Amino acid sequence: MLYRSCFHSNLKNIIRNNEVFRKYSVIAAVLEKPNVGNVTEIKGWVKNLRKQKDLIFADISDGSCAKKLQIVIPKNLTTDSLTYGSSVHVTGKLSKSPRGQLELVADGVKVLGTCVVLDGFPFNPRTIHPPEYTRQYLHLRSRTNYTSAILRIRSAVTKHIYDYFAANNYTNVHTPILTSNDCEGAGEVFKIQPDNEETVKAMMQEGKDRDSVYFGSKTFLTVSGQLHLEAVCRGMGNVYTFGPTFRAENSRSRLHLSEFYMLEAELAFCETLDQLQGAIEDLLKYVFIATRNTNEADLFLIDKENKAPSWVTKEFVTLTYDEARQILQKKGSALTDEGINKEQELTLVEHCGGVPVFVVKWPKDMKSFYMKESTEDSTKVDALDLLTPITGEVVGGSLREDNYEKLKSKLPSERLNWYLELRKFGNIPTGGYGLGLERLLQVLCNVNNIKDTLPFPRWPHNCDM
Amino acid sequence: MLYRSCFHSNLKNIIRNNEVFRKYSVIAAVLEKPNVGNVTEIKGWVKNLRKQKDLIFADISDGSCAKKLQIVIPKNLTTDSLTYGSSVHVTGKLSKSPRGQLELVADGVKVLGTCVVLDGFPFNPRTIHPPEYTRQYLHLRSRTNYTSAILRIRSAVTKHIYDYFAANNYTNVHTPILTSNDCEGAGEVFKIQPDNEETVKAMMQEGKDRDSVYFGSKTFLTVSGQLHLEAVCRGMGNVYTFGPTFRAENSRSRLHLSEFYMLEAELAFCETLDQLQGAIEDLLKYVFIATRNTNEADLFLIDKENKAPSWVTKEFVTLTYDEARQILQKKGSALTDEGINKEQELTLVEHCGGVPVFVVKWPKDMKSFYMKESTEDSTKVDALDLLTPITGEVVGGSLREDNYEKLKSKLPSERLNWYLELRKFGNIPTGGYGLGLERLLQVLCNVNNIKDTLPFPRWPHNCDM
Repeated sequence: MLYRSCFHSNLKNIIRNNEVFRKYSVIAAVLEKPNVGNVTEIKGWVKNLRKQKDLIFADISDGSCAKKLQIVIPKNLTTDSLTYGSSVHVTGKLSKSPRGQLELVADGVKVLGTCVVLDGFPFNPRTIHPPEYTRQYLHLRSRTNYTSAILRIRSAVTKHIYDYFAANNYTNVHTPILTSNDCEGAGEVFKIQPDNEETVKAMMQEGKDRDSVYFGSKTFLTVSGQLHLEAVCRGMGNVYTFGPTFRAENSRSRLHLSEFYMLEAELAFCETLDQLQGAIEDLLKYVFIATRNTNEADLFLIDKENKAPSWVTKEFVTLTYDEARQILQKKGSALTDEGINKEQELTLVEHCGGVPVFVVKWPKDMKSFYMKESTEDSTKVDALDLLTPITGEVVGGSLREDNYEKLKSKLPSERLNWYLELRKFGNIPTGGYGLGLERLLQVLCNVNNIKDTLPFPRWPHNCDM
Repeated sequence: MLYRSCFHSNLKNIIRNNEVFRKYSVIAAVLEKPNVGNVTEIKGWVKNLRKQKDLIFADISDGSCAKKLQIVIPKNLTTDSLTYGSSVHVTGKLSKSPRGQLELVADGVKVLGTCVVLDGFPFNPRTIHPPEYTRQYLHLRSRTNYTSAILRIRSAVTKHIYDYFAANNYTNVHTPILTSNDCEGAGEVFKIQPDNEETVKAMMQEGKDRDSVYFGSKTFLTVSGQLHLEAVCRGMGNVYTFGPTFRAENSRSRLHLSEFYMLEAELAFCETLDQLQGAIEDLLKYVFIATRNTNEADLFLIDKENKAPSWVTKEFVTLTYDEARQILQKKGSALTDEGINKEQELTLVEHCGGVPVFVVKWPKDMKSFYMKESTEDSTKVDALDLLTPITGEVVGGSLREDNYEKLKSKLPSERLNWYLELRKFGNIPTGGYGLGLERLLQVLCNVNNIKDTLPFPRWPHNCDM
């Protein structure tokens, strides 16, 4: 592997080639720069076996990429333990098959770990197991093509996100998971306690209950790092956070999880929704195109029909909330005080030709206290939702109320005085957004159920492993 | 900003220059490629003011880098609200001062947010506030040089870690925070519950208590993603996870937090401690050197004496546990059954000339059930701790027991049958390690107290914001 770094060139001498530690080659590297004629060692799992008279052909995957490497094994080198699912160490010479395909002609095959399907291995060769089936075997499902492809894409998307923000001078901020801010009832939250009774007893203070014994106040799992980001933004400029977020809702839909990854960015000196929309649109197009470049074969493994959506070269649509209401009304679908429901979100995207739609300028009563009142209409806030095919909303964002007095009048609790105080000293206008990684992956990979976009999904009554 | 991407060149056309959204330049970009004579707009905070007869000199920081940009302001352009801590929008022309320093000669200065120190702003110009003081103002301390420098370094280290693993073909895996695995009593854990009583009532089932009403079993915050990583490793090869981890210990030392970031990697087909040590040493040296290249000015802001440690070009020392015991015994410091304490760790590092020390081959009884029994001595396991100056242990790791029967005999609970089953089908030898990000930052930045290495530290009785 070449080290693809953008740092000073002297670093290349420091980075030892990890193959020194490995003493074998990963298949992604072999396929990237095939050296036909080279003696090569690979390690991986048997995905497929085809037996001929004197030869056995095996497709080996080591998880490093979507593609398998074909191994040609003389029959005298094989044993009965060389089966589908077994792990192997193969040495041989890289060659081209008569059809021009790269293959490894083995001169040594060692089975490292056997796999007897009849002993309870839940997967079968040449079988596409439906996601609902593999989801029952969370500890083994990364051995299937479908799950391993999604996990590689998830890893790549994560890397693209870090690359994008680094290139654009954002600072990555690790906002906390544990917080004394319960989101003011805006979302359902989990609370935490030490599990050990001894610890609870040792830390108990008069007037404190079990919920506040450890930290001195009731403590929750974060539902958003936004307020913390806003604090750091007012010293460091553009910032983002990317990590786990929690909802204690009793919701089992194909779009909800109890634990999910959220990307949140806060843009310093952001004064208009237009600037915020530009930043979101830019990020999304970047991630989609970069991932198609790096993981085309994985996308194909998941969905042979998966094509780059037409909208990556188009401008996203912008509708005001009032315009969206009128469009839906004409289609006989009235909005309630709850806002736009999932079906209506998807209707709006379809109405706009399948291109993502920003819905902007929302009624103030529907949105959070920190959103900035629109200058032209005090019943509205400068908020946005971005709607896409498959999932509907994937991004929510707003300009933040930067007027000290207006914010003070809307502050839901004294415990947020620190948040108000951010506006008192060297205040700046900011805006920001939150993007759900799993929903983005649903759109990118055309995956119907959100539970298949992450390795260990958690939802009500399900927290295996 | 040039987009420093390693992807296909056609991406450069897709990435719009974010300055389009910003309509101003970040100082890091201005300093990277100074265009003397150019009309330039910047936005940031006043860090310093020097008044002369007809001119005012202001140092402006926007948080994008350690360096400030000097602004030269004709007196007629300034107002009383231009004070230390205020936020400003400055337009002007980039010039060189008589001394050759880059400066912005202002033709427009707008104060965006005032800052009246006497109104309660806790920081003063030209003052180095001690970390214990700024820690009282978590929401404002990113406005200080010290904290902002550490946060930029933390962000850079995070990026270097992602770059390193991507370049070496590891897949990033988001292991879960919520888990039904309580780590078998190995560490003190937090448990979670929904906070909302209505949710609890609606989800209550017969025979379930409050702790298990939501997920169907008692659920904890993770203390390690290792077991989950091992599952994914057996389908995808080399994997890593990097995120928040929790300990419900009642510990208030300068080295402990209740929430901290841990990097954990699992190496497929890893058969020797030597391979594992090589991978750890390589990563650490890479991160140290890369960070010194990208954040030299930040390191200097924190500690003017900060020098690259001599060990980045040396091989790390390896001692067996027995050798370490003998060395300490000669120094009159006997080991107990608890292992090596903090003071002893630091003594060992000093004994080895300040170079990081791997202590390997630990007594089996001191270590976890999943660690691999040493082939040459069944009373030992193939485990390692890496000790460094300042913090002592920063990395712990081991080869994993890959023998099905041996692991079965040591398995602490039937609930881990899934973990045992990983060894049943296509098993491979693996090894892995966990690295504490905050301790790494302490070593890198020479920071005594771990609470100053992250934006929002959580420790007993402290979970502000």
